[in-house]
Amino acid sequence: MIRNAVGRLIPEEIDGRKLKPFAGAHNDHGGGRKVGPPIRAVVDYGNKLLKSLDEAIDACQIQDGMTVSFHHHLRNGDYLVNLVVDELAARGLKDLTLAPSALFPIHESLVKHVENGVISHIEGSMNGPVGQACSLGKMKKTCILRSHGGRYRAIQDGDLPIDVAFIAAPAADEHGNCNGLSGPSACGVMSYSLADSLYADRVVVVTDNLVPFPNYPWIIRGGNVDYVCTVDKLGDPEQIVSGTTRITRSPTRLLIAQYAARFVRDIGLIEEPHFSFQSGAGGISLAFLKYIGDIMRQRGIKADFARGGSNKFLVDMLEEGLIGYILDGQCFDMVGARSLRENPNHLETDPFTSYNYHTKGNFATRVRVAVLGATEIDLDFNVNVNTHSDGWLLHGIGGFADVCDAQITVITAPLLRGRLSTIVDSVTTVTVPGETIDVLVTEHGLAVNPARRDILDRLKGSDIPLRTIEELRALAVDMAGVPRKPEFEERIVALIEYRDGTVIDTVRQLKV
Amino acid sequence: MIRNAVGRLIPEEIDGRKLKPFAGAHNDHGGGRKVGPPIRAVVDYGNKLLKSLDEAIDACQIQDGMTVSFHHHLRNGDYLVNLVVDELAARGLKDLTLAPSALFPIHESLVKHVENGVISHIEGSMNGPVGQACSLGKMKKTCILRSHGGRYRAIQDGDLPIDVAFIAAPAADEHGNCNGLSGPSACGVMSYSLADSLYADRVVVVTDNLVPFPNYPWIIRGGNVDYVCTVDKLGDPEQIVSGTTRITRSPTRLLIAQYAARFVRDIGLIEEPHFSFQSGAGGISLAFLKYIGDIMRQRGIKADFARGGSNKFLVDMLEEGLIGYILDGQCFDMVGARSLRENPNHLETDPFTSYNYHTKGNFATRVRVAVLGATEIDLDFNVNVNTHSDGWLLHGIGGFADVCDAQITVITAPLLRGRLSTIVDSVTTVTVPGETIDVLVTEHGLAVNPARRDILDRLKGSDIPLRTIEELRALAVDMAGVPRKPEFEERIVALIEYRDGTVIDTVRQLKV
Repeated sequence: MIRNAVGRLIPEEIDGRKLKPFAGAHNDHGGGRKVGPPIRAVVDYGNKLLKSLDEAIDACQIQDGMTVSFHHHLRNGDYLVNLVVDELAARGLKDLTLAPSALFPIHESLVKHVENGVISHIEGSMNGPVGQACSLGKMKKTCILRSHGGRYRAIQDGDLPIDVAFIAAPAADEHGNCNGLSGPSACGVMSYSLADSLYADRVVVVTDNLVPFPNYPWIIRGGNVDYVCTVDKLGDPEQIVSGTTRITRSPTRLLIAQYAARFVRDIGLIEEPHFSFQSGAGGISLAFLKYIGDIMRQRGIKADFARGGSNKFLVDMLEEGLIGYILDGQCFDMVGARSLRENPNHLETDPFTSYNYHTKGNFATRVRVAVLGATEIDLDFNVNVNTHSDGWLLHGIGGFADVCDAQITVITAPLLRGRLSTIVDSVTTVTVPGETIDVLVTEHGLAVNPARRDILDRLKGSDIPLRTIEELRALAVDMAGVPRKPEFEERIVALIEYRDGTVIDTVRQLKV
Repeated sequence: MIRNAVGRLIPEEIDGRKLKPFAGAHNDHGGGRKVGPPIRAVVDYGNKLLKSLDEAIDACQIQDGMTVSFHHHLRNGDYLVNLVVDELAARGLKDLTLAPSALFPIHESLVKHVENGVISHIEGSMNGPVGQACSLGKMKKTCILRSHGGRYRAIQDGDLPIDVAFIAAPAADEHGNCNGLSGPSACGVMSYSLADSLYADRVVVVTDNLVPFPNYPWIIRGGNVDYVCTVDKLGDPEQIVSGTTRITRSPTRLLIAQYAARFVRDIGLIEEPHFSFQSGAGGISLAFLKYIGDIMRQRGIKADFARGGSNKFLVDMLEEGLIGYILDGQCFDMVGARSLRENPNHLETDPFTSYNYHTKGNFATRVRVAVLGATEIDLDFNVNVNTHSDGWLLHGIGGFADVCDAQITVITAPLLRGRLSTIVDSVTTVTVPGETIDVLVTEHGLAVNPARRDILDRLKGSDIPLRTIEELRALAVDMAGVPRKPEFEERIVALIEYRDGTVIDTVRQLKV
């Protein structure tokens, strides 16, 4: 075991694969070469449109031990993962690696395929029951969690070779050009599958909305697709994009959002040229959008761009002219999806463009301020978004590690959550290192990472209560006591891979 | 020397590189893996905007013997190639390989850099004086000509490794996102540089129109760009896109165009579902557009799409509703460029999407009928578009070899050109094999490739004069005699590479 740069012990090797311990957020300068996908010839691609998903699965000649990938743009409405894995199980396949960008509660039935040996392990985010199964040690091999950008990087760099990618396409033509803009399963952005389309050995596009050629925009290009097939329904529209996203009504959370917006105002950020921001889709983040919008309107300031996850509040700002562009990575509600389809200043981005760390620059680093929620934060400003305080692995990384490359990263969190302190001595799991976190905003004021003296200087004159993180921690302990640490077995069940491919932490089997 | 599938003698090796002789148009099924470009990290791309082209050249650390690439979307108005190569010469660099997608007469000054050893040879199309220099044996090494799709394939497959790509961008932001839609050098489509941006070791974007981030569409993605710099002028707007393209006024050529359109009508092609076509920008091709438009209008038929080179006539058809989409590869006039910018059904395509043979399908094979001009055609239907009958290498391949993958490929040519027969016993240079050419249309009627019995059957009842190619050849000889063959030296000065990477012919030094 080697102690990495955030003090976590990382095995030298796991499942026969050598691990690189995390060595600092900006210590990786690339090197080596991207992976070269197989060369195929046009002559063998006369007709790609197959009669059924079954036929497509046959055509791919999937074998025991292969890696099969999926994507999460249909979120908790997705039918495809279960459809395919059930079918693979019915064919008696074993020891498959599943490489979804993320899984949701709807994928709970995968747990039985883990138990019966169809799935050996998962490289991807696991929200809910599948993560729980991982925590219980049910996977044969060690799971790997990656951020959106980290997943692109891993596929591109050859760390995650994919044999067959199944891409759920809300709209596709027979050549395989697809996007998420129309059809019964329209989800808006669908570019999480980009890396898979470029690098997987075989690529299957599955749609419930076959449209005439040419389907444009070709977010996934037909030239990277082996087979196209149709199914009755890709998913449950109600669960694919929520009808509406709602601002929090909790006074505590509203106060946190207000502090975050005032912080951005008070350090003079919105008055600088080229203001831009990113905020999530949680209740606090949406309230932040409202408050920052009010300030911008008041001061007559327009942001060059905002990064999505898009939602009604962001779209309102775009339509009002408060934002020049939405650079979207995911549509969180119907209004976001509609705007992406209709507004020429609402642009679909993908994990290469936005988040991949092994590129010649990405959009994440251009964002002036990012406002994100977190499960735990510790005295070193390390953040955990993966495991709950009770030790269960219940969440993926999403774009978290990538977004923290913003010029200023702000974590918003109530001091207590479920009567437990959000601020801990040391997070259960390190998702991102404290060196990439600049400010913590709570309802009791904000704490600035001492490494960011510049921010502390800029805050002079602000009337937001300023605390050290230790003070906020003490306050929380006063209110709720020191939380009990979860107990773990020795066995490592998952690795938390940082955006550069190093291992920042491990997740151990929960003692239950 | 090995005799290839069209009977041409190909050396086993040239300049230390093993050659694959052409083995049939559809004999290549891929294999092996694409090349993996170097892995770089975001941390090293804080500010890409350099002060000058000079500074960008410095940053690239170009050394003797390296390969430097350019693109031809500014056509005969391009200033960039000369600017850069003059600068490289001034620095005393030697033995550079130049890899432009195409050169034009404006690049004549490169000849002196060939003579003084700055440039060892060229891998790319040479229109005019540079081709002439090649014919005279001035290049130190053997040049390689590739089609647009073949160039993409060669870069992707690692046959043409590029050290530094210079991309002339009519509009670019400081991140390197670029397109050809606006600015003083607006050219419309600029996607010939796509492969270079993806695979070159270093990528420099040069613009005379720096626009705010995010510049969209990002035809070239900033994430693939190392440096951005500005120059006063990228080119001469008058020469970048012509103000207008003109239909031929020659009665002979109009007749040929009319026969071509009647051919398409008489075989019932436009009545089939999913009609689509591609036609060039020469006088006959434009007249073909007019005639085919008349027929479609008359019969109330709409094409799913037409492939560009776009021009006024094609745009008129789009705007009238005769075409669903223009899938454009290059804008030949101002109207084409304007339509690409404004019309959501006028789409920019790139050589990957359209032409690359080593993909999982491309657009070229989806085209129902392509109508193309040619310099020479022989009794085996082999076509030459590279050398004139007098042996001078004066033209590139363009998309020719790629477009011939259309379902029906029609060559239009007057029987005589400059008092020489266009139809010859054996073409001076084989650009594409006769097996990919289906019909020759002349003012004396048309000849169908005997391999296409299906087309002959479909022509029953047509009143277009039907001839064998031998009959047309005899007619031409009657009128103009047998043309004198050019005389060549032994030395091979250029290879004609087929779209799959095999060598279909060689070009020899001209005896002068």
